[in-house]
Amino acid sequence: MRRAAYITATGEPETIRVGELPVPRLGPTDVLVAPEALAVDPVDTFIRSGAYRTPMTFPFVLGRDLVGEIVSTGPDVVGFTAGDRVWCNSMGHAGRQGSFATLVVVSADRLYRLPRGVDAAEAAAALHPAATAALGLRRTGLRAGETVYVGGAGGNVGACVVRLARTAGARVVATASPADHERCRGLGAEAVFDYREPGLARLLAEAAPGGFDLHWDTSGHHDLDTAAEVLAHGGRIVVMAGLGARPELPVGGLYTKDASLVGFAISNASIGDLAAAAEVVNRELAVGGLPVRIAGEFSLAETAEAHRRTERAPSGRIVVRP
Amino acid sequence: MRRAAYITATGEPETIRVGELPVPRLGPTDVLVAPEALAVDPVDTFIRSGAYRTPMTFPFVLGRDLVGEIVSTGPDVVGFTAGDRVWCNSMGHAGRQGSFATLVVVSADRLYRLPRGVDAAEAAAALHPAATAALGLRRTGLRAGETVYVGGAGGNVGACVVRLARTAGARVVATASPADHERCRGLGAEAVFDYREPGLARLLAEAAPGGFDLHWDTSGHHDLDTAAEVLAHGGRIVVMAGLGARPELPVGGLYTKDASLVGFAISNASIGDLAAAAEVVNRELAVGGLPVRIAGEFSLAETAEAHRRTERAPSGRIVVRP
Repeated sequence: MRRAAYITATGEPETIRVGELPVPRLGPTDVLVAPEALAVDPVDTFIRSGAYRTPMTFPFVLGRDLVGEIVSTGPDVVGFTAGDRVWCNSMGHAGRQGSFATLVVVSADRLYRLPRGVDAAEAAAALHPAATAALGLRRTGLRAGETVYVGGAGGNVGACVVRLARTAGARVVATASPADHERCRGLGAEAVFDYREPGLARLLAEAAPGGFDLHWDTSGHHDLDTAAEVLAHGGRIVVMAGLGARPELPVGGLYTKDASLVGFAISNASIGDLAAAAEVVNRELAVGGLPVRIAGEFSLAETAEAHRRTERAPSGRIVVRP
Repeated sequence: MRRAAYITATGEPETIRVGELPVPRLGPTDVLVAPEALAVDPVDTFIRSGAYRTPMTFPFVLGRDLVGEIVSTGPDVVGFTAGDRVWCNSMGHAGRQGSFATLVVVSADRLYRLPRGVDAAEAAAALHPAATAALGLRRTGLRAGETVYVGGAGGNVGACVVRLARTAGARVVATASPADHERCRGLGAEAVFDYREPGLARLLAEAAPGGFDLHWDTSGHHDLDTAAEVLAHGGRIVVMAGLGARPELPVGGLYTKDASLVGFAISNASIGDLAAAAEVVNRELAVGGLPVRIAGEFSLAETAEAHRRTERAPSGRIVVRP
């Protein structure tokens, strides 16, 4: 048996139960992992509430991410052995059971080696925002020398976008709360503005006279007028947050610039895309490059409270110890 | 000297003058063309009014398109000779003088051979909508076997999208006024609905159970909620009309499907893109495949009236005989 945080129907955080469940049968290409650290992603709360629909069987174990140690491997698994420290960020979706348990069966192709010496909690906290940043930059084909706008750069996804865009050789201009400006500059942003600044569009245009090749507001607050105004010809606007947002789309401002708006959700990423993102994430984990801050730690028994915290403050990373 | 329809400042149709202007000097890779037929594009009226800004020197000759006969060629021109029937659809933009004149100097790389036996007026009327359709399908990478929604399929661009998508091996579902349904079916649309039909989204979902890979509303009226609802995973929404439109963007509906919204304007097309589109257009012109209807013919002296007609009814193709 294993202890797990699960639901028997979608609903409020109160629907989360923590108790014993059987350990699933290990398939030939599966790996049994004992998590050291888990993290609550905002999407976990949408899956739990039913706001984000995905096929699930009950009891449904919650959770997307895990960092842990391999207990045993299926007979056909190549490249992993018991004792290896690994991570996964694609459990609990599309029919797969989740990661919030003391033992988790993970398909080997969704598992990546944790770089030596990396702290489990710090890695767990970073996986989702860092992989999101890596996937978005991959999806929009960011090239060295391009200019990127990052909104919400004080947040975890935003900070990871700044870091990964810089590593990829792009110029970065960011917006964030004044308290985060120094951190954004430390990550490599050339200019940082307060997003509440009146005349922000003018400041952005001055900071990037050729316009932005990529415009990524990670905060979920979409000002598409400003985005279109400061966009370079052929620029891309990333949209991956703000599930219920309904900003007005300035159609002409977009198409007269041959601009596109690219939506993506990490939940939809293919195994190949996830593996490509994992390479980028691991490169940064190995050098301590991921600027993610842990906002709180909970035990598995406190998963409901961990969800409430994430719902109240989705930008704070919550780690759960199983 | 040549007769031309030109402006000395942007403004209302009344600003258009028709009179004698010098013939520009022929550069080494230029071709002098005597137009047989011109067409008024809706964008011509935006250029004239100043709504669509582009660098211009006054007097500025109006017009994007021409079909005509070569009078003479610059010394370095290869592949064209006097007497050839040719067409161009990229004059009057980005500093280039326009096509509305009795003699026009065209850079050879913007000139394409008119297939044998094609009527000049019919070709002129078709160039802009057909090249727009070809460019949009190219930009969004339409593949054989994909399913395409075409809104405004009774219009000229819409009808061309239906035709070119079918030629490319795609399935097409269209909306149009009931009067145009039979024509849409004749062009190869599998199902055609009245765009005012209540419950349109349900009908579209039934007609394309796997969702639409491409959603192109050519009418400029963007219902992005319906578009997102009936879109396939990874689908693309084309946006190239409705300069002042500000529809609400259902952010979550888009990004949870990994969907993108692709804006483009034929005005921005590169010489390479235009040439690729011209190949598609010529293949259809040669077989009489372009379903464009001429709404009226005017003389060069009546260009102001031709602009007024296009402003009142942008979907009717107006041909001008120089």
